[in-house]
Amino acid sequence: MPDEPTAFVPGHVTGFFSPAPADDPARAGSRGAGLTLTDGVAVTVHEADEPGVVLDGDALPMPPVETVLSGLGVADRARVVAESDLPLGTGFGVSGAMALGTALAANVRFGCERSANDLVTLAHRAEVEAGTGLGDVVAQARGGVPIRLEPGAPAYGRLDGVPATRRVEYVTFGDLSTAEVLAGDTDPLVRAGEAALDRLVDRPTLPTLVAESRRFARDAGLLTDRVREAVDAVAAAGGAASMAMLGETVFALETGLTDAGYDASVCRTCDAGAHLVDGG
Amino acid sequence: MPDEPTAFVPGHVTGFFSPAPADDPARAGSRGAGLTLTDGVAVTVHEADEPGVVLDGDALPMPPVETVLSGLGVADRARVVAESDLPLGTGFGVSGAMALGTALAANVRFGCERSANDLVTLAHRAEVEAGTGLGDVVAQARGGVPIRLEPGAPAYGRLDGVPATRRVEYVTFGDLSTAEVLAGDTDPLVRAGEAALDRLVDRPTLPTLVAESRRFARDAGLLTDRVREAVDAVAAAGGAASMAMLGETVFALETGLTDAGYDASVCRTCDAGAHLVDGG
Repeated sequence: MPDEPTAFVPGHVTGFFSPAPADDPARAGSRGAGLTLTDGVAVTVHEADEPGVVLDGDALPMPPVETVLSGLGVADRARVVAESDLPLGTGFGVSGAMALGTALAANVRFGCERSANDLVTLAHRAEVEAGTGLGDVVAQARGGVPIRLEPGAPAYGRLDGVPATRRVEYVTFGDLSTAEVLAGDTDPLVRAGEAALDRLVDRPTLPTLVAESRRFARDAGLLTDRVREAVDAVAAAGGAASMAMLGETVFALETGLTDAGYDASVCRTCDAGAHLVDGG
Repeated sequence: MPDEPTAFVPGHVTGFFSPAPADDPARAGSRGAGLTLTDGVAVTVHEADEPGVVLDGDALPMPPVETVLSGLGVADRARVVAESDLPLGTGFGVSGAMALGTALAANVRFGCERSANDLVTLAHRAEVEAGTGLGDVVAQARGGVPIRLEPGAPAYGRLDGVPATRRVEYVTFGDLSTAEVLAGDTDPLVRAGEAALDRLVDRPTLPTLVAESRRFARDAGLLTDRVREAVDAVAAAGGAASMAMLGETVFALETGLTDAGYDASVCRTCDAGAHLVDGG
């Protein structure tokens, strides 16, 4: 094989969600909706005596990645090297992307002969077990603008989508701990998330998705001051924006943040789900 | 809206299949597997007093497209203009692509506010009712290398995939009538298709997919002389090729047909499923 196998996994901002716990991590997850992004994570898997995970040049522990490698039986000889367009811990699904990209690339590198659904399931379970995400992996596997109708890995979950493609802008002010939010009282999240999903299913368009995300963030009490200010500024400039779940990150359709005077990063919704780009 | 909405739908070559009829066209379809292609069909929908369908400059009747437009309630005012990289009737799923691309683009053009699954269901039903295809639409909606585990539209069907991306070559000698083949004795197809699917699920790789496709085409008695000659020539040159279901078309991985001396068209497996490209 000339090149080491590399997978690209789109970033994913969740706009609203309701946690759906279950004893079996393949059945656990969340309902909700969000946008996958052309900004994402490229994950390469090497065979090496020194296993480990490197993200943007820094070695770091990443439990979901290690769980995926163990599930494939290659934890003692895989070195994972990832380059991310997006910061970790700020609501872009970077840890889910690392887990799913590792599954796709390691499957090729070590000839594991797993199916796409098997690899998504491995990564989804690993994320749920680590408490780092509930719905990113299945959304990132799909691409586009995923609606998560039922929680869980492919054998249990059910996805639909908003049929649209659009320019997306984002700014990040800081990180939030998914695990910490989920450890608190999640009843308001569940109520607000289910109401938002009902309304989006009734009218599956991008403007509805962003409007329901904004209502969810407010009703669930998750807006920080900096995020509220940016979201309000975009609305005042005639645009549509909301907060990424879970990070101190604001995303907007089209030129929403730029029009409001922010120095935003620019990408698009990602037409393709996670896929091998080289050596696959 | 500055531009008329346009959808791109990848081509799809089915390598093997087993028909799965049902009274409800949303539950009918086929099991099987194939490759989606970066060569495909771009479909634009205009509002016009003169409705109609134009493919590569020629007006033609296309019942699945008309059924989709009727399902969206816009048959009297939609003009569908498509450009295809691939010939019609030769096993590339062009009619499925026309139906699905029309659904995606018309949904935007006329503000129908349907979900992705709703649009796929409309197009799948229309193809099944017209007898022009059984599994192309759901495969084209997914992208990649789809395995159709269970037949039917998203509410009923079940998909997996071979996690791979690869250069694909193809040559076309002529057309075959899907409706005619399906009107014959389909028992050998069902037996050969189910056996091939079992073996691919057991080992979901591209070489398995092509090898099982070759065995299926032979066992089901569908190889024409020209197709057999090309498939054998690719194998003799060390490559992997089989026949597209249903057309007098041969597809090969990597440089298989070129290595065997054929003047082949070149594309890749398509990482993205059907999606809006403009005005969406």
